Amino acid sequence: MSTRAAVVVTGTEVLTGRVADRNGPWLAEQLRAYGVDIAQVVVVGDRREDVLSSLEFLAASGVDLIITSGGLGPTADDLTAEVVAAFQGRELELDTDLETHIAAIIDRLSAGRGWRLDPDATAAATRKQAMVPAGASVLAPVGTAAGLVVPPADGRTTPPVVVLPGPPRELQNMWPAVLADPTVQSALAKRADLMQSTIRLWGTPESELAALLRNHDAHLDGLEITTCLRDGELEVVTRYGTSAQAAYDRFAALISGEYAETIYSSDARTVDDLVAEALLADNLTIATAESCTAGLLVARLTERPGSSRYVLGGVATYSNESKEAFVDVPHELITSVGAVSAEVAEAMARGVRTRFGADLGVGITGIAGPDGGTPEKPVGLVHLCVASADDILGRAVHVPGGRRDVRARSVTIAMHMILRVLRGH
Amino acid sequence: MSTRAAVVVTGTEVLTGRVADRNGPWLAEQLRAYGVDIAQVVVVGDRREDVLSSLEFLAASGVDLIITSGGLGPTADDLTAEVVAAFQGRELELDTDLETHIAAIIDRLSAGRGWRLDPDATAAATRKQAMVPAGASVLAPVGTAAGLVVPPADGRTTPPVVVLPGPPRELQNMWPAVLADPTVQSALAKRADLMQSTIRLWGTPESELAALLRNHDAHLDGLEITTCLRDGELEVVTRYGTSAQAAYDRFAALISGEYAETIYSSDARTVDDLVAEALLADNLTIATAESCTAGLLVARLTERPGSSRYVLGGVATYSNESKEAFVDVPHELITSVGAVSAEVAEAMARGVRTRFGADLGVGITGIAGPDGGTPEKPVGLVHLCVASADDILGRAVHVPGGRRDVRARSVTIAMHMILRVLRGH
Repeated sequence: MSTRAAVVVTGTEVLTGRVADRNGPWLAEQLRAYGVDIAQVVVVGDRREDVLSSLEFLAASGVDLIITSGGLGPTADDLTAEVVAAFQGRELELDTDLETHIAAIIDRLSAGRGWRLDPDATAAATRKQAMVPAGASVLAPVGTAAGLVVPPADGRTTPPVVVLPGPPRELQNMWPAVLADPTVQSALAKRADLMQSTIRLWGTPESELAALLRNHDAHLDGLEITTCLRDGELEVVTRYGTSAQAAYDRFAALISGEYAETIYSSDARTVDDLVAEALLADNLTIATAESCTAGLLVARLTERPGSSRYVLGGVATYSNESKEAFVDVPHELITSVGAVSAEVAEAMARGVRTRFGADLGVGITGIAGPDGGTPEKPVGLVHLCVASADDILGRAVHVPGGRRDVRARSVTIAMHMILRVLRGH
Repeated sequence: MSTRAAVVVTGTEVLTGRVADRNGPWLAEQLRAYGVDIAQVVVVGDRREDVLSSLEFLAASGVDLIITSGGLGPTADDLTAEVVAAFQGRELELDTDLETHIAAIIDRLSAGRGWRLDPDATAAATRKQAMVPAGASVLAPVGTAAGLVVPPADGRTTPPVVVLPGPPRELQNMWPAVLADPTVQSALAKRADLMQSTIRLWGTPESELAALLRNHDAHLDGLEITTCLRDGELEVVTRYGTSAQAAYDRFAALISGEYAETIYSSDARTVDDLVAEALLADNLTIATAESCTAGLLVARLTERPGSSRYVLGGVATYSNESKEAFVDVPHELITSVGAVSAEVAEAMARGVRTRFGADLGVGITGIAGPDGGTPEKPVGLVHLCVASADDILGRAVHVPGGRRDVRARSVTIAMHMILRVLRGH
């Protein structure tokens, strides 16, 4: 049995869906990289009894470490430190060093932002954030909230609880201090080498893969294989202990043999990684002209640091006039075949390539819905085109789902088309 | 005590953070609108014992209904139906009507996409997806997976479990059938009128609000107030039963009096809603020129259906040359004050407004990092400008955090600046 950890994400705003949780996934990835398996992520509101029952459930399920995020702010609905103290059988007490430290941070913040804060209110907020369970280790604040490592009181058998702030930047910057903490190190001491491998396919139906796995079931002992279909990408993730390496090698050979055509990555690199690397390797530049996706592709291409070396820019040509003015789509072409057409997608790709002086141009035009569809050109119809100096790749797709799905899937399809052009198909 | 439901999201891809869960938040919002409070969202991997222990925990915590998402696919790691059957004390049995129905769906899908599927593999996958717990109600598939409503076997006291597919579109389209199911209706029969109100502020520090709440604590009985700071927006959500209406009215009057200047919404409308409504109401159009945010603002403005009525488009002017070529930023301006400057932001806003013939133009230029910062112009420095025919609003901000934070926060700041210009500041 491997070492397992669990995460409790607190916050009514997360539970009710007003804010998407980024901490559970991030912590899961960090723990896995550290060789620790994650058992569960529980999201609970800011209610004392719900936070407490979640901690009790996770302790009962035998995890070695619990990590909480959120609930460390100055308002009364922030009650994680208090609940964790009770859970571990410890009293809350004022840490005067921490109080001084937080007060200094708030002074600096207020000065920088020109806030005039009520001194009594600020002192009360600071004091609340400086109340820590007796015997806990305090991790220095990144924002205004300290992190905590809270071991069980003597005689208790609950796992240690690491208490981290909710803002992702604060939590992430505190992570090295968590791993360096002796209580955490001792809880995770028996972590094993847990391998994870990812193979990504584009164009193989999930049911085909299911059949392959079923037929070779007997040879896959010791592998935990999960498949996931997302925006048309089929992702096969295999987790296994080092003792199952031979089984994994057999599996990798099997899948590589069957799906050589559709595997685009077998070393965890995403299509985003591969496009960026290929552009850099060949010293190429790219520019985009987007209609229905209106900026999503260029925003995705510029997500990574250093992307200014290969992304020159893009145009969201939402109106027909802007297709003519910014990427030179002929007016007559739009009137004759319509803005959503293979011809206009190609003209957009060629036009934006020329206008930006880029090596590659991408054109996307489609009907994201929910309105604007016709029997000939229904909602979800998207034309895409990637043009280089001596190559052109066009595709028409019909994406199921709502506006959000159509836009997101179109961007992923465009990424794969760019990759194909970069790889010479 | 209100009626409470809980959600179990299954899927190693969600647990490990490779896919963000959209179902937990969506279900929470639907349930709340239906007057049902959500107690917990548990995310577990595709492991029998983890799914089962989550169901047991939620049943023990006294929820009235459990909803699961995911784990209904054709591969062996999809095991929700089987685990829920065991949890409710029911046998899995083949539903031959459902088998025929799913087979017809797969035939139609394969024909449409030109797949040639192995008949035996397809039959096995279909049969697996047609195994349902005896006595469960079957909800017609939207994709290839049916939903299930599984009541406890006679003599058990566990809550009913609703089993839904993982893909958000399938789950969402199945929701009306869930609410119409008699078992679900009976489980939620005692739902109460649960009110929720949202007030949003831009520019008030959370600690100020915390002080206000603390000082008036005695008058807020019966209100569950949660505050959440996100991208600089402070969101105050209050949940209360109808009996606490008077307390809520007092609270609303208090906060409106104190923060009249910074409250931008008190009826749950987001800044996105308000910008869209104001543009439509005044029949105005908008265009964007983005450097560091490279398309994120125009993508956000076009998220909503019908946005083509007011969004003309945008340019991601990632290179300096494109700032000159597409939005007429003078070359000399860039060489004299630099691309990241108030002057260039204003030139971008004015230039894109003119080029698109829009009523409003927005310019954003900044240093998203992690590279490219200097002592004078550090990472996180962003200049923004909104220009209309007779108004101009410029702002320089220093956004903390990483590349993603800088880009996301800048877009939110731009939305608020657009709103201020539309409202005449």
